[in-house]
Amino acid sequence: MLPSDNKSAVQLVVHPAWILPIIPRGEVLSEHSLVVQQGRIAALLPTPEAEQIEAEQHVHLPSQVLMPGLVNAHGHSAMSLLRGVADDAPLLSWLQDHIWPLEAHFVSEEFVADGTDLALAELLLGGTTTLSDMYFFPEVTAQRIQSAGMRAQLVFPIIDVETAWARDSDSCLEKGLALRDDYRDDDLVDVGFGLHATYSVSEATLRKVSTLTNELDAPMQIHLHETRGEVQSAVEATGERPVALLDRLGLLGPRSQCVHMTSLSSEDIQRLVDNNSHVVHCPRSNMKLASGICPVHRLHQAGVNVALGTDGAASNNRLSMLAELQSAALLAKLEQHEATALPAGSALEMATLGGARALGLEDKVGSLEVGKLADMIALDLSGVNTQPLSNIMSQLVYATTGSELTHSWIAGRCLVNEGRLTTLDLNTITARAGRWPEKFRAHQANH
Amino acid sequence: MLPSDNKSAVQLVVHPAWILPIIPRGEVLSEHSLVVQQGRIAALLPTPEAEQIEAEQHVHLPSQVLMPGLVNAHGHSAMSLLRGVADDAPLLSWLQDHIWPLEAHFVSEEFVADGTDLALAELLLGGTTTLSDMYFFPEVTAQRIQSAGMRAQLVFPIIDVETAWARDSDSCLEKGLALRDDYRDDDLVDVGFGLHATYSVSEATLRKVSTLTNELDAPMQIHLHETRGEVQSAVEATGERPVALLDRLGLLGPRSQCVHMTSLSSEDIQRLVDNNSHVVHCPRSNMKLASGICPVHRLHQAGVNVALGTDGAASNNRLSMLAELQSAALLAKLEQHEATALPAGSALEMATLGGARALGLEDKVGSLEVGKLADMIALDLSGVNTQPLSNIMSQLVYATTGSELTHSWIAGRCLVNEGRLTTLDLNTITARAGRWPEKFRAHQANH
Repeated sequence: MLPSDNKSAVQLVVHPAWILPIIPRGEVLSEHSLVVQQGRIAALLPTPEAEQIEAEQHVHLPSQVLMPGLVNAHGHSAMSLLRGVADDAPLLSWLQDHIWPLEAHFVSEEFVADGTDLALAELLLGGTTTLSDMYFFPEVTAQRIQSAGMRAQLVFPIIDVETAWARDSDSCLEKGLALRDDYRDDDLVDVGFGLHATYSVSEATLRKVSTLTNELDAPMQIHLHETRGEVQSAVEATGERPVALLDRLGLLGPRSQCVHMTSLSSEDIQRLVDNNSHVVHCPRSNMKLASGICPVHRLHQAGVNVALGTDGAASNNRLSMLAELQSAALLAKLEQHEATALPAGSALEMATLGGARALGLEDKVGSLEVGKLADMIALDLSGVNTQPLSNIMSQLVYATTGSELTHSWIAGRCLVNEGRLTTLDLNTITARAGRWPEKFRAHQANH
Repeated sequence: MLPSDNKSAVQLVVHPAWILPIIPRGEVLSEHSLVVQQGRIAALLPTPEAEQIEAEQHVHLPSQVLMPGLVNAHGHSAMSLLRGVADDAPLLSWLQDHIWPLEAHFVSEEFVADGTDLALAELLLGGTTTLSDMYFFPEVTAQRIQSAGMRAQLVFPIIDVETAWARDSDSCLEKGLALRDDYRDDDLVDVGFGLHATYSVSEATLRKVSTLTNELDAPMQIHLHETRGEVQSAVEATGERPVALLDRLGLLGPRSQCVHMTSLSSEDIQRLVDNNSHVVHCPRSNMKLASGICPVHRLHQAGVNVALGTDGAASNNRLSMLAELQSAALLAKLEQHEATALPAGSALEMATLGGARALGLEDKVGSLEVGKLADMIALDLSGVNTQPLSNIMSQLVYATTGSELTHSWIAGRCLVNEGRLTTLDLNTITARAGRWPEKFRAHQANH
């Protein structure tokens, strides 16, 4: 029943075949419906009762499971334009001979607008409702995200070297703080600090960011312990592991999001536990770039929150959170030599509430609970690949292609309706993105 | 130009956006078309010329790449009914407490018919045109495959323990040889020997099979070195590694297909090289069951042919060769700590010609070359996930969802047309498969 003193019109009632709320853990409801009022989840109740509610819209989804929208906790959206540009190259060459030269030449507001739109389209159609983004011209990214109506954490890049966007780290900070100020009252977009890595930012800048993030209680995300090589180099140069450096400088806290983390000692993990810091796991990127495997099982055993991220499309090459959680579930079993590692429920939680926790949004999204915002997706399980329907959570994790999405809502606003984007124009997006490969080829031919 | 003395009607001319023939390696043709006559590839030629040809059918595929049909070199189709039945359990418990009891109780001709149909539907829609199958009641599987019109190698199971299908290994051999005789003149279905494993079949039976396969020049497939534990147990019990046992008994030859092979020494690999034997790599199954990683890069370096397989849907849980080759390409890089390992072209070759070689079909299928049979698929690359189209082979391997297929032909016969199966009825298949989970649950509740 709805609160009797609530006079607001009911915005939406959804009647799916199943509801996977994520909390309570392991629960799959059938013959239940979900009520949305003022962008929030007002009730989950038996369908016969829900059918009686007067609402602006009743949506029937007879072969779909309704679940929280997926949270992509690490990405570089604009890099979608670089998808497939130089695959299968050795890592250093890929970066130094291909990616960085192209970025140096082409990254601009136009590049970021086109690339971000393409990424947002793919993410939305794949079930992502909240994303974290770390890339140049974040003010453009923010505007595209607003235009699409998605929820996001923008961690503006902080890096010492000069880029098309900023002269140096101080310039990054200046622009980033201005952006944070612009979006301080925004419901959907959060702005935080995106430290590139400990090897690309001076200690002086790290200290500045530490002061700022603590003063402002702002989120901070950083590529950390991405490879064993990174850790070894740091120890050889300074005697200190990167995560220890962050800890010493006060940069490990409950709002810190450490991305990749493939090379971890027990002490490293303890630092995360002691500081309530988060890990963002990017399994497909780590595989594609041969970076290593993040020990998710060990982190979970220690009580560390782990989220999931696609990283950029040039090192995945999909921007699909369903593919990401599928890969995570498979890889964790291999890493642990244990078929019980990262079971389906845990993988689904990582991709929803785990991401929400990492981004500081766990009170707002990540599960279908009364009072939370109605960020949710509907996935159609009638396809041949998910038959027979023995176990909804299993099918979602191990049998999906990533193409199952039919509907997506953010705060009750429908962004994908019957498989079609409502706020983005795919034709325009594809056409705009399609102009770039030729520019890249022309440039690469001349250099 | 077509051979001037060839008076047969041209069956089909396909005009795709690109042709990926697999051979020559690395070639992607644009503005070319493919001509089919009497089920064979008669020509690949520039599209303007091809448009002039008088043919029964011209098919225009403006956003598709045409490539050889994918070859699923290892599976247990009927196990699709067990998809999601007991995921995330420890391996032994999964087998002993769930899978084997259910199989013992439920495997029947009806089970195999329903499960095989479901698997064939998913495989066809995902781009597979040739499959290898190892399961009980292979005569039912063969009939379902014929009904679907697919190409297949049926390796009838040979296992000592009693099953619903056969009393013991001798009974397996008797029934299997009869099946082989039934299909000796069949164009699409090949019957070979499916040894379960060296730990489930006596040496006496292995010797019988060795004699038979050598006499008959028949294909043989076996689960081999699936885990380190399997190898260790064999060495502890007999002092001999399983692959060495096979070698000693004359079971390693150019028609031997060794499935899984995650635990390999240099000597093991040398045996494969010396005998021209094949490996069938099942990356997703190996991950899900925490079996280990097959060292594909090392095998390729040594010159061993490696094919790809989905294994059964209960340990994947997809039956998608695109997902399998994507996983293989990602996993190989991790395994080798090298971002250059198993590049896109190699992964695509493994899934086509590599599979054809393993199954002894390399003269017939696996590449789009004049004279070969027209087993081919069209994959639509206009979706947002494969944009922008920088590199066709990269996008195919790293960016596909597995849902890109629009058309599939086997020997020029269209089995999937504009995304729809032409020989299988999805509604019936789904309905029949959908009856089984309840039966399983009822049984599990009472045991």
